[in-house]
Amino acid sequence: MLHQSRGKAGAMQTSPTALIEKKRDGGEHSSSEIRQLIELFLSGALTDYQMSAWLMATYLRGLSDDEMVALTRAMLESGSVLTLPRVRAPKIDKHSTGGVGDKISLALAPLVASVGVAVPMISGRGLGHTGGTLDKLEAIPGYDTRISAKRFERQVERIGVAIMGQTAEIAPADRRIYALRDVTGTVACRPLIVASILSKKLAAGLDGLVLDVKVGRGAFMKTSRSAAALADSLVRVAAHLGTPAVARLTAMETPLGTTIGNALEVHETIAILRGEGPKDTTELTLELGAEMLVLAGTSANLKEARACLQRALDSGAGLERFAQLIEHQGGDARVVERPALLPHTKQRVVVEASRRGFVREIDPLALAQVALALGAGRRRAEDRVDPAVGVELVATRGERVSRGQPLAVLHLRKSNDEAAKATRAAFTLGDEAPRGRRLMGRRFASE
Amino acid sequence: MLHQSRGKAGAMQTSPTALIEKKRDGGEHSSSEIRQLIELFLSGALTDYQMSAWLMATYLRGLSDDEMVALTRAMLESGSVLTLPRVRAPKIDKHSTGGVGDKISLALAPLVASVGVAVPMISGRGLGHTGGTLDKLEAIPGYDTRISAKRFERQVERIGVAIMGQTAEIAPADRRIYALRDVTGTVACRPLIVASILSKKLAAGLDGLVLDVKVGRGAFMKTSRSAAALADSLVRVAAHLGTPAVARLTAMETPLGTTIGNALEVHETIAILRGEGPKDTTELTLELGAEMLVLAGTSANLKEARACLQRALDSGAGLERFAQLIEHQGGDARVVERPALLPHTKQRVVVEASRRGFVREIDPLALAQVALALGAGRRRAEDRVDPAVGVELVATRGERVSRGQPLAVLHLRKSNDEAAKATRAAFTLGDEAPRGRRLMGRRFASE
Repeated sequence: MLHQSRGKAGAMQTSPTALIEKKRDGGEHSSSEIRQLIELFLSGALTDYQMSAWLMATYLRGLSDDEMVALTRAMLESGSVLTLPRVRAPKIDKHSTGGVGDKISLALAPLVASVGVAVPMISGRGLGHTGGTLDKLEAIPGYDTRISAKRFERQVERIGVAIMGQTAEIAPADRRIYALRDVTGTVACRPLIVASILSKKLAAGLDGLVLDVKVGRGAFMKTSRSAAALADSLVRVAAHLGTPAVARLTAMETPLGTTIGNALEVHETIAILRGEGPKDTTELTLELGAEMLVLAGTSANLKEARACLQRALDSGAGLERFAQLIEHQGGDARVVERPALLPHTKQRVVVEASRRGFVREIDPLALAQVALALGAGRRRAEDRVDPAVGVELVATRGERVSRGQPLAVLHLRKSNDEAAKATRAAFTLGDEAPRGRRLMGRRFASE
Repeated sequence: MLHQSRGKAGAMQTSPTALIEKKRDGGEHSSSEIRQLIELFLSGALTDYQMSAWLMATYLRGLSDDEMVALTRAMLESGSVLTLPRVRAPKIDKHSTGGVGDKISLALAPLVASVGVAVPMISGRGLGHTGGTLDKLEAIPGYDTRISAKRFERQVERIGVAIMGQTAEIAPADRRIYALRDVTGTVACRPLIVASILSKKLAAGLDGLVLDVKVGRGAFMKTSRSAAALADSLVRVAAHLGTPAVARLTAMETPLGTTIGNALEVHETIAILRGEGPKDTTELTLELGAEMLVLAGTSANLKEARACLQRALDSGAGLERFAQLIEHQGGDARVVERPALLPHTKQRVVVEASRRGFVREIDPLALAQVALALGAGRRRAEDRVDPAVGVELVATRGERVSRGQPLAVLHLRKSNDEAAKATRAAFTLGDEAPRGRRLMGRRFASE
């Protein structure tokens, strides 16, 4: 095919150009062409600017199921795949497509590990309006996310859970492609999202994967339709590559839980594991955890699995496993008993309601921007984050507030009138109570 | 607009990303956004891979008329524009969108100059299947295409014609963008072609521009419709930028004239200027030259203009001016009297007809590939060309040949069976004479 295309359109075309032109014209790549694309890219024969042109063509033309599978496989195989032979428990991981205030992994991983399912989690850092699990963990003094593959395996074997960053050996093609997508307007593209998520996650040698696909104005996928398409693709491609998967659509219309900011979210995690967490983050932890247990085969159904996890919350086993996780990765495990040991700001600013009424909406992107402005996130990959700053929500959606009642507390380093103003504006107050909204949406499974 | 877009989609977006996303989503850039795009690119704040993504988005989404004008202007103004104040004659140039065997500029420029119209021509090199005027001129021993802007002006003042390459000062944005387009599958894109052609050509400070838009299987534009759209855009954008222009569609279904290869095409040029050239290249020279004279205002209409140019052919004034052009740029002007002084190969291979019949078609791309394989062209910008090699057509379209009669002669350095086979295959022989085909097509003018 490529040879023909080269012949037809003139000899100035090299293979990389022929690959780009094929996608540009809406053609479907063979698996070997996709493999060639990634190999040429890694060898340098296909340059960054050529990859960017291919990515934009892919953004606008799409990829077929077969192409998605081939791309995921090629990116996965661009690096090493951990096999974790010493871990005998079923290995299940969870991935979220990214939401504001989404700290679920922090409580979920130790909670699930505490009931006998291994969670070898390879996580990422925050960029733009989404936070990163690694940044949150690093808010715990001493916590080291840059551990070796060997130590990772030993830790999963011992305590059933480890959370580390993507090493240089894991899906290097994804790392380089993601860096390009981030600055070329090709992030919000379903097939590229699928390949990026799965090439990283499947590198941990999983027995199953649970996917939390966010939908709503605070998510990449704004509509149920696009989120469903993503969930469906993720589950089918994972299954094609031999990993059973379940995806759930979950609402991202308001921030998740009551905190946005790294140490603040660790705080909330501890509350969840104490059984004192906000309703939505607790619910999501139990639901996604139950999916993991069923995938692992340690529970027969979701109801049993939930009950099992609830017991681990009640008994404190989940919190204890969190303390072990922190300790094994060099962190100060005393924080689970004394959260005041976490980094915190001296200054706090209370943002009050300017009228009485019901909290009808809380804009997640607006608050993510505030947290970013305070220093909790990164605008560019090389930025440093401040672990202590962030936004703490006091009023929740549906709540009735009177004028002057606190809506949120900003944890900041120095006064910031704009941040306070933006926070107030993020709350829509009205005379009528808003309709209830479901947190958990459709379910997609590979069986 | 950009600020909004940045705000909406998250703070991770810098201006370059916002520009890419706008075009990706089919938005229309303001003139200031287009100017910003080019400025950011030249300053390095918008990288090659970001430009490639924007180019692909533009390929698939298109540019409006206003965007095309703004892009052409921004690219033109990225470099210096020659004003040539000492040249008093009207300054008219010609540009061809590129065809196989298209050596028209070589005869046209001195012929038109010989009747009192100045031709300050900034030309390009060949790439892929299209030849380049500069490569052809450099086949003349000593001819120097890298002259300074000052010498260029002096020469146009003295003899009415100079042909040089794009210097570093002329439309640097175009040079860098063209290099990217060439390897990212974004060459055959009307708005980008328009901006590239006009930003270079208008840098010579012209009073008028004649455009030869090739249409057919040997051209970038395969259909009359796409060629007409290109011609129309070129003429309108040039007029918007203050330069009256005329575009003609001309057929590129068979190679132009009887030669493909640098020195061979100089040979044919001399024949044209002697009044002994092939019918099609002579016709094209007179027609395009007549358009130049009418644009310059030195002839009242095309008929008068043609007669004027015919006289310059008959008197030898055009040939003499070609000799002066060569001499002024350091070349050996004796070649116009003794073409044997041009580089030539010792070896020739005659390709014969394998049956009797009419020559129904001659595939221009196939013969361009042969010439390229023999060394006459470049696969990559850094390749060197061999001035002597190429393809000489003996049989022309519509001609009746008997079995064993020569169809073409290959001028080559060493035997090449594949080239001979490909050349034979480029000729379609049949029992019936082909229908006549018009060389000159629709005319587009800015008035």
